[in-house]
Amino acid sequence: MTIRIGIVGYGNLGRGVETAIAAQPDLALAGIFTRRDPATLATLGNAPVFALDDIDAHANDIDVLVLCGGSASDLPVQSPDLAKRFSLVDSYDNHAKIPAHFAAVDAAASAGGTTAVISTGWDPGLFSLNRLYGEAILPQGETYTFWGRGLSQGHSDAVRRVPGVAGAVQYTLPAEDAIARVRAGEQPELSTRDKHTRECYVVLAPGADAEAVREAIVTMPNYFEPYDTTVNFITAEELARDHAGMPHGGFVIRSGESSAGVSQTIEYQLTLESNPEFTSSVLVAYARAAARLEAKGDHGAKTPFDIAPGLLSPKSAEALRAELL
Amino acid sequence: MTIRIGIVGYGNLGRGVETAIAAQPDLALAGIFTRRDPATLATLGNAPVFALDDIDAHANDIDVLVLCGGSASDLPVQSPDLAKRFSLVDSYDNHAKIPAHFAAVDAAASAGGTTAVISTGWDPGLFSLNRLYGEAILPQGETYTFWGRGLSQGHSDAVRRVPGVAGAVQYTLPAEDAIARVRAGEQPELSTRDKHTRECYVVLAPGADAEAVREAIVTMPNYFEPYDTTVNFITAEELARDHAGMPHGGFVIRSGESSAGVSQTIEYQLTLESNPEFTSSVLVAYARAAARLEAKGDHGAKTPFDIAPGLLSPKSAEALRAELL
Repeated sequence: MTIRIGIVGYGNLGRGVETAIAAQPDLALAGIFTRRDPATLATLGNAPVFALDDIDAHANDIDVLVLCGGSASDLPVQSPDLAKRFSLVDSYDNHAKIPAHFAAVDAAASAGGTTAVISTGWDPGLFSLNRLYGEAILPQGETYTFWGRGLSQGHSDAVRRVPGVAGAVQYTLPAEDAIARVRAGEQPELSTRDKHTRECYVVLAPGADAEAVREAIVTMPNYFEPYDTTVNFITAEELARDHAGMPHGGFVIRSGESSAGVSQTIEYQLTLESNPEFTSSVLVAYARAAARLEAKGDHGAKTPFDIAPGLLSPKSAEALRAELL
Repeated sequence: MTIRIGIVGYGNLGRGVETAIAAQPDLALAGIFTRRDPATLATLGNAPVFALDDIDAHANDIDVLVLCGGSASDLPVQSPDLAKRFSLVDSYDNHAKIPAHFAAVDAAASAGGTTAVISTGWDPGLFSLNRLYGEAILPQGETYTFWGRGLSQGHSDAVRRVPGVAGAVQYTLPAEDAIARVRAGEQPELSTRDKHTRECYVVLAPGADAEAVREAIVTMPNYFEPYDTTVNFITAEELARDHAGMPHGGFVIRSGESSAGVSQTIEYQLTLESNPEFTSSVLVAYARAAARLEAKGDHGAKTPFDIAPGLLSPKSAEALRAELL
């Protein structure tokens, strides 16, 4: 049975979802919903584009919505609103506000008889799952999350605001010495700043003083001052040619002991050439799970912690046991 | 609420389960059940030991059994038999016969109103989960499972049967060049023999010819002939001192593309100083899930594919969302 997906919001994530659906045997793209003028939207494929305001008219053609808006202002409004009438998945990633977001979506989905899976993606999402599995299996130990090497949008924006900067990107890197200590089973105490370094690629504005720009970046409070930061000056051509991608990734490492002196290490690593495409791939697999749970009558808000792994696969439980167990 | 566990079978795995229960806040060891004379069993702690034949008399004191027997002859009999009356977990690991084992346990558990989670551990188990997540999220790609560095019991036994060998262990190692090709996104075709090398540590019997022993090992059909095998001769003292542990581990790598030319890699790695203790730690976390599913009325046979991750943790769903998502 084909699961019909609607995409809400068409930026990098929406385009990634459009691509990811095409790779799945049992999913079909029913429509793309946008706040822009639908006639102006240039999409990758030939799915119909509709105004988001008209989405209720398409309720009979859609099994699950994949919400592709941002966590700052889109999802806190859209997820609770749309969950009243549609099963959905989102990638809400404001860790501190997840309990409030869950409560709002759960009230809407429970009242509406829909199934809404929030905070899918890779962090929150796959990284969260590995934090949970690690802690449940090795209760005596420590969990470490490292991010990178990856493009950080917020830190890139901060560099671009420095006077004399004409263009810039910032990559967050896991600190190699910190990873080595964790892998060796030392279980060190590490803050986020101990675990990461920062790498900037900057195009100077005409006449700007490179040393002054470098100094302004590396001393910037909160963003760079606490970190080991390197600044590389490049040309506008190099920026466009070598830094247009959106790579990301990271590690979750659980370092524990199963008995005194017996060390056990679980390591999960993502190396992503495109952060939005990978997040989209995860969203789409959870959309399949949302459709199945709704059909079973298991309604309300869910997170990846609530989703049995088998629900993510197009294969039957029998096939999974025979082929992958 | 405390979950009361019974251990069935008291070898390396049973001892590991006894240790793992002590590390979990909400689990208690109700008893150890053995086919040996209970009076002769020297256990790590002070849990009562009973004859396995008398287990039905303890049904009211046990929430979940953890079966610690072998997959060759113990579990095919014990799991279906005990699932009629007890919720349980096992680590059945004969991949080819999992569907038949599942069917037998499912019939028993469904009739008995119990919940039986089979094939937990790390392979099958955690590695299976990562094969599933990888394939569901990146449908266009290849999954690679590498084992090692780890002690192989079957291959160690094969070396010990060679004339002139007084003692031996065999380690299976992942082939470094194969891992490098997979991590680079090449998606090579690799057989099990391409992916692994074998390393033997051998104590010669008095008067044995080292070169003849080496030749007999590396040319042994199936076991060693297809592999790159190294043989190291050591003393009995070195064997006892340096090779008494049971390390194991390995990798599951999913190498895929989210769109043409955009490579995404998911890597899961275990580095285990004690294979039986780690397997036991996984069994115990799934015992918690089995108890919860039985209480919810979700009966029958399950595998790790059917278990929502949150069921493995002693924490509430609220705490998990706030702390780990």
